[in-house]
Formats: sequence, structure tokens, C-alpha cells
Amino acid sequence: MQLHQNLTELAGIGAIPGDGVCRLAFSSADLAGRNYIEAHMRELGLEVSIDDIGNILGVRPGAVDGPLVLTGSHTDTVVTGGRFDGSLGVLAGLEVIAQLNEAGIQTHLPIGVISFVNEEGARFMPDMMGSLYLTGQLQRDEILSITGVDGTTIGENIDHLDYAGTAEFDRLDIAQFIELHIEQGPVLEAENLTIGVVERVQGIRWLEIAFSGVANHAGATPMRMRHDAGFAAGALIQQVRQLAEEMGENQRTTVGSVQFSPNVINVIPARAVVTVDLRNPGQAALDAAESSVREMAAAIAQSEGLTLDIRKLAHVDPVEFDAGCIRAIERAAASLDYSHRRMMSGAAHDAQIMASRYPAAMIFVPSKDGISHNVTEYTAPEHIEAGAKVLFQTLLILANPSSY
Amino acid sequence: MQLHQNLTELAGIGAIPGDGVCRLAFSSADLAGRNYIEAHMRELGLEVSIDDIGNILGVRPGAVDGPLVLTGSHTDTVVTGGRFDGSLGVLAGLEVIAQLNEAGIQTHLPIGVISFVNEEGARFMPDMMGSLYLTGQLQRDEILSITGVDGTTIGENIDHLDYAGTAEFDRLDIAQFIELHIEQGPVLEAENLTIGVVERVQGIRWLEIAFSGVANHAGATPMRMRHDAGFAAGALIQQVRQLAEEMGENQRTTVGSVQFSPNVINVIPARAVVTVDLRNPGQAALDAAESSVREMAAAIAQSEGLTLDIRKLAHVDPVEFDAGCIRAIERAAASLDYSHRRMMSGAAHDAQIMASRYPAAMIFVPSKDGISHNVTEYTAPEHIEAGAKVLFQTLLILANPSSY
Repeated sequence: MQLHQNLTELAGIGAIPGDGVCRLAFSSADLAGRNYIEAHMRELGLEVSIDDIGNILGVRPGAVDGPLVLTGSHTDTVVTGGRFDGSLGVLAGLEVIAQLNEAGIQTHLPIGVISFVNEEGARFMPDMMGSLYLTGQLQRDEILSITGVDGTTIGENIDHLDYAGTAEFDRLDIAQFIELHIEQGPVLEAENLTIGVVERVQGIRWLEIAFSGVANHAGATPMRMRHDAGFAAGALIQQVRQLAEEMGENQRTTVGSVQFSPNVINVIPARAVVTVDLRNPGQAALDAAESSVREMAAAIAQSEGLTLDIRKLAHVDPVEFDAGCIRAIERAAASLDYSHRRMMSGAAHDAQIMASRYPAAMIFVPSKDGISHNVTEYTAPEHIEAGAKVLFQTLLILANPSSY
Repeated sequence: MQLHQNLTELAGIGAIPGDGVCRLAFSSADLAGRNYIEAHMRELGLEVSIDDIGNILGVRPGAVDGPLVLTGSHTDTVVTGGRFDGSLGVLAGLEVIAQLNEAGIQTHLPIGVISFVNEEGARFMPDMMGSLYLTGQLQRDEILSITGVDGTTIGENIDHLDYAGTAEFDRLDIAQFIELHIEQGPVLEAENLTIGVVERVQGIRWLEIAFSGVANHAGATPMRMRHDAGFAAGALIQQVRQLAEEMGENQRTTVGSVQFSPNVINVIPARAVVTVDLRNPGQAALDAAESSVREMAAAIAQSEGLTLDIRKLAHVDPVEFDAGCIRAIERAAASLDYSHRRMMSGAAHDAQIMASRYPAAMIFVPSKDGISHNVTEYTAPEHIEAGAKVLFQTLLILANPSSY
């Protein structure tokens, strides 16, 4: 399959040691990756257009001028990214086009492949910017004025790199959007399955919880006289894990970051800031989890004699994918005899943004050790092929609705 | 009492904003503080000598040429120190001399006041260097070659500042050593007492405990598949507090510092390093506490599937002060009608080093809010006076042994 070589070629653009990739959005490496995609689209005979923030669309006409069956993903990466995150979805879409061309198949509806700009949000927030723009949830003026971690604006970078086109995708007639992506988690590998049929995306809550007490001497201060912010952080970490256990499989809780101050071995911490990441595919359950964490923090602060400050850093509602798209993917996987299961996505993707306006769903393939956003990210060649084949069948099903 | 003005004058040397003091050991500010003490000793008619690392001794002869009844402390400070830590003990010793002079009292034994170098260890480790040298536990060559946080050696600084003398204190005949110090803890204030009779110093164990697991995506990784080093840190913080509760009043446990990596909100921590500070005045109990913490860490690491690495950063055995010195202080406090209690010291002091070779004990006065090593360190004037008076009486008792 040509796809393997294309993945290797694209990974050579912005390559970093250890087989990784750094193509931060709106950088020259990102532009080089996009040029590779655009050139490949033109070689395949697609009608290429680029919108005014840089989303690239290639269309293969159908028998009728109907709505577009769309696939794709993104080619930007985090600072120390892997070669599959995003790139697989775009290049597998082009592989589908190549095979349709080779087999001389005429689909009823047109098929499109899109490469969204700045899905990662690693240099310019928010993430999933290209799909937010396409679905009308971000305006061009807002986007151009966003300042990145290096102090430049997106507008400056777009001008400097001659990055954007003039097309407008906001009035595109889209039948469905299907995104193939690596799982970025360990579930498929652990269950020895080949295909994940993604039926929903977890909602997210990020809380930053700050406890403030009194710094004091670790030796001279009796236990009963302490107002120990560090102890509160420890108690919360413990209780947040317990919450996930009580709420069951769908609830995930993570304390990923903590900061004590003064953070000295023999001083009782005056202040401790922890972050809590909550995920659940169910809206009501996620709301309940957030309330529980707020109550836990308040109870701990009270019993230790601390002040408490909670900031919400992120609030993303869960997304349910389209039943028709889900069934099409399942039928495709079954017809190819691939083992598969329905699952949820723990990470955020352009498909969930597209789902706010169009029928959408996702196909997952296994990630070795569940590792992503890391140079060691890896998906086996046979799983790459399986994903591309399921994408091919799914797009055929959707683009020929009357045949099925 | 002249003592108040002397404390204010000494606090003016190396003053920092907020009424604090910075006289790091072997710095020019430290030298200026020492020169102030030396000049004051000479004004009081003491026989002044300085040893070859800079300890300063002033002696007021007794009726006989017998062993020295010694008091004192230190005048070096931490970077953001207060005006009482150490300075009180030296200046109160000189206040005692001034009052003996004024009253024309001839003591049976000579009385000495010593100012030890580098008690804090804030610039050059170890702390309590002057008393370690005097008691033969550190050699001069070792000391001179110690490199500080700024990259210079003690030897260079001593030469540059012309800091040292030529006296040798290691053969001094010392009857007792009594150190007056602020409590640096909240016990006396909380119990509304004026004088602490310090009968022992806690032993210390410092452990650095590192858990290593696997960094993974907070959304995509099911709870049961995690190897979360951050959770282990939280569980240990919780259990270490519980250990103190189970062991009772004398056991103190503190997790003062923690470091997660990568320390990112949506990544399960791959590594977490916590420090555990254990204090107990009893040797066996302290050993048991250390064993318990090691077992807890091992059990947590095993249940979470983590690797564990424990380093011991400090091991100081508890010190029992001399029964005769303790009784002398108690008698002095009682004769002056000051409320008092026996207690332990949570912090380390030169007196515990002196206790390895000579009968020794300490007098504590209250610290407002238990705060020390901070510019807001404060002890009320009436408590300063009470401490000086108890020191006066204690030294009189010890220097006139046959009278009591």
C-alpha cells in the first residue's frame, strides 16, 4: 500500500530525533507538510481549494453534484509529536482516492479529503481551530489576532508564509464527515482488536484548585496546629481517584499537575495548586463529577483550616456521533472481517467539532502502549492498512447511499 | 533593658525590607555583624578571642580559674531571616555580662559568651558548623574547602574578609553550655507560657521518595490501565499524615516538597518525587516511623505498578539535654515567677552539638505565630526580657555551684 511510503515521506518534513515530528501550526515546517498534501491532491486529480485560514480541501467529483462525503484530519503536530497523529487521517483519505482512481470507480456522491489547520493548539490556542472556523464557531478576524506562545499572531504568520487561500468552506454541502485516527489510548491493543468504531467523545472539565494555608517549620509545629496546603493536595488526589472508582468505567479522573510553595523539604506548604482533569461521555455524569470534586475540595479545606480557590480552565460537553455514520463504519469493518468494538474517544478531534453541524463519526486503529504526543507513537503497518481499508469501505457505503 | 536597643542595632546590619535581615555566613554583612559583637564584648571588658574559622568567644573571669559556664548562639541568618533567630542568644549573653558588671557581681566560675559561625548552613553546608568544629566533629581543612551555593569556598571568603583569628577552642574547659533561643514554633504562644525549658531535640530523618510509572493521555487511558506516579504521591502524603496521628504527639511528619513530571494537566504523571520529613525525640520511635514510611511507599508502588527509589537525605539522632542544666533553668524560671514548661525543640541548634561533649540545655521564648526564617519573625519585648532574665539566673546558678 502506497500509504506507508507517504506516511514516511510526510514524517520526513519537520523530522526530529527518535522518529518524531515537529510541525507546529502556521510554521514553515507546517507549510511544507501542507504543500506535500496539496501536491499529492493535485497528482490524484482532485479539485483543490484552500480557504482563507489555510484549510485544504481536495474533491473527487461524483456522478451527481450532491453533498460531499468528507474525510480527513490534520497534519500539524505538537512540539515532540509522532508520525501518525493526524497525518494518518489525511493520507489514508488520499489513499482511498488513489484506489478509487486505480479501480476506475465512479461514486454517486463526490468524496472530499480535508486537512484542517491547527488541530493541536500547541502554538496557538484554541485547538481544532480549522474545524471550528469551518463550522462557524470562530471568526476569521478573531483567529488572525490570536497570539501564540512565541508572541507572534496567526495573521502575521499567514501573511509571512503566504499560507492561506481565498475559498470559503462555510457553505459547503457536506453529507457526512468520517475521520480515521490512531486511538492514542491503550484499549484496542489491550483487547487485541483492530478497529474502534467511535460512537462518542468524552466531555472534559478542567479545574485548577488552590489551597492556601500557613508555611511553618516542619519540626517545630505540632501536627494539630498545622494548616498544611500540601496535605490537602494529597487528600484531594486520593479522593479524586476514589471518585472514578465509584462512578465506574466511563468516568476518568486525573491529577496531572501539582505545585507546592515554598516547596521545601522542612517547611509545611503554604500553598498547593493541583489540576483535576475529568472526562465522561455522559453530560449528567460529568456535571456530577465536577460537583463532587468541588465538594471534596471544600470539605478538605475546611477540615484543614485552609482557604480555597477553584478556577475552571476548560469545559467541553460530550459529543454523540451520528448513528448512520457509526453503522456504516461497523458494516465496513464487518465486511472486511476485522475485529472491532464501539468505543468512546478520550481525546478531542476535529470530528467532534464537525459533528455540531454534520453527521460524523470516527474510526480508530490501535496505538502501541497507548502512547501519543510523543516521538515513540507507533501503529503497526497491518493496523494502518486495516484503518485505510475500513475508511475506503465506509466512504463507498456513504457515497453510494442507494446501493446499500 | 539595653538588650532591645542592641537587637535593633544588630538588625540594622544586613537589613532587608520588611524588618528582616540577610547576613549569610562568611559574607561581608556577616562580618559586620561579628565586628559589632566583638566591639561590644571589648566594651564590656571581656577577654576576646577568635578561633581559626571565626568562632568568637568573650570571657568574664570568675573567682577561680575553673571551667567556663558558657552561653551564646549565632549571628548569621538565612537569606530572608528575622532579627531574633540566633542574635537573641548572643546579645542576651552580653546583657547578662553587662548586668553582672553593673551589679559588681563576682561569680565563682568564669562566664563566657560565644558567637558560633555558620549555624544556618544557608550558604555553606553543613549547618551548625562552628559548634561541630569546636567539638571536633569537623576539621579545619574540610571546612575551608567547602564550596557554597555561589561557587566560592569558605577558605576564600575567610581570607578575603580577614574573618578568622588564631585561637583554638577545642581544648576549652567548659562546665556547661546554655543557649537562649526563640522557639520558632507555636507551642508556647498557644499555651500562653513565657519560658520553654528544652529537655531534648528531635531526631530527624529526611527521605526523598521517587515513584516512576507511565505518562499517558488523561482522556484515553482507562483508570484500570494506569501506572500513575502522581496518585502514589497523593496516597503517600495521606498515609504519612495518618502515621503521625497513629504515633501520637511526639511524632511529626511533613511532605514539604513534591515534583511531578511532565506536570501537565492532561497527562498522567510518569514520575513523582516527594520528600518526607520525620521528627521524633525518641530514637526507637523515629526508626519505626522511617520503616513505616518505607513500607507504605513500597506497598503503594506495588499496587499501582510503579518502580520506587528511596534516598535518605538526612539522619540526625535525637539529643537529650543534661538533667542538671534543665533543673537550673527550671529553678531560674520559677524564682522569677515565669510560667514555663519542659518541651522539645523541633529545630536544630548549636546546643545539641555542644551536648555531644558538654552538659547543655536550652531556654525558649515564644515566637509570634510560630514563624521563623522569615522577615515577619517576632518575639514580644516582655518575652525578650523574660528570656534574658532566666538566662541571667541560670548562669548565676551554674557559675556559683556551691551556693545552690
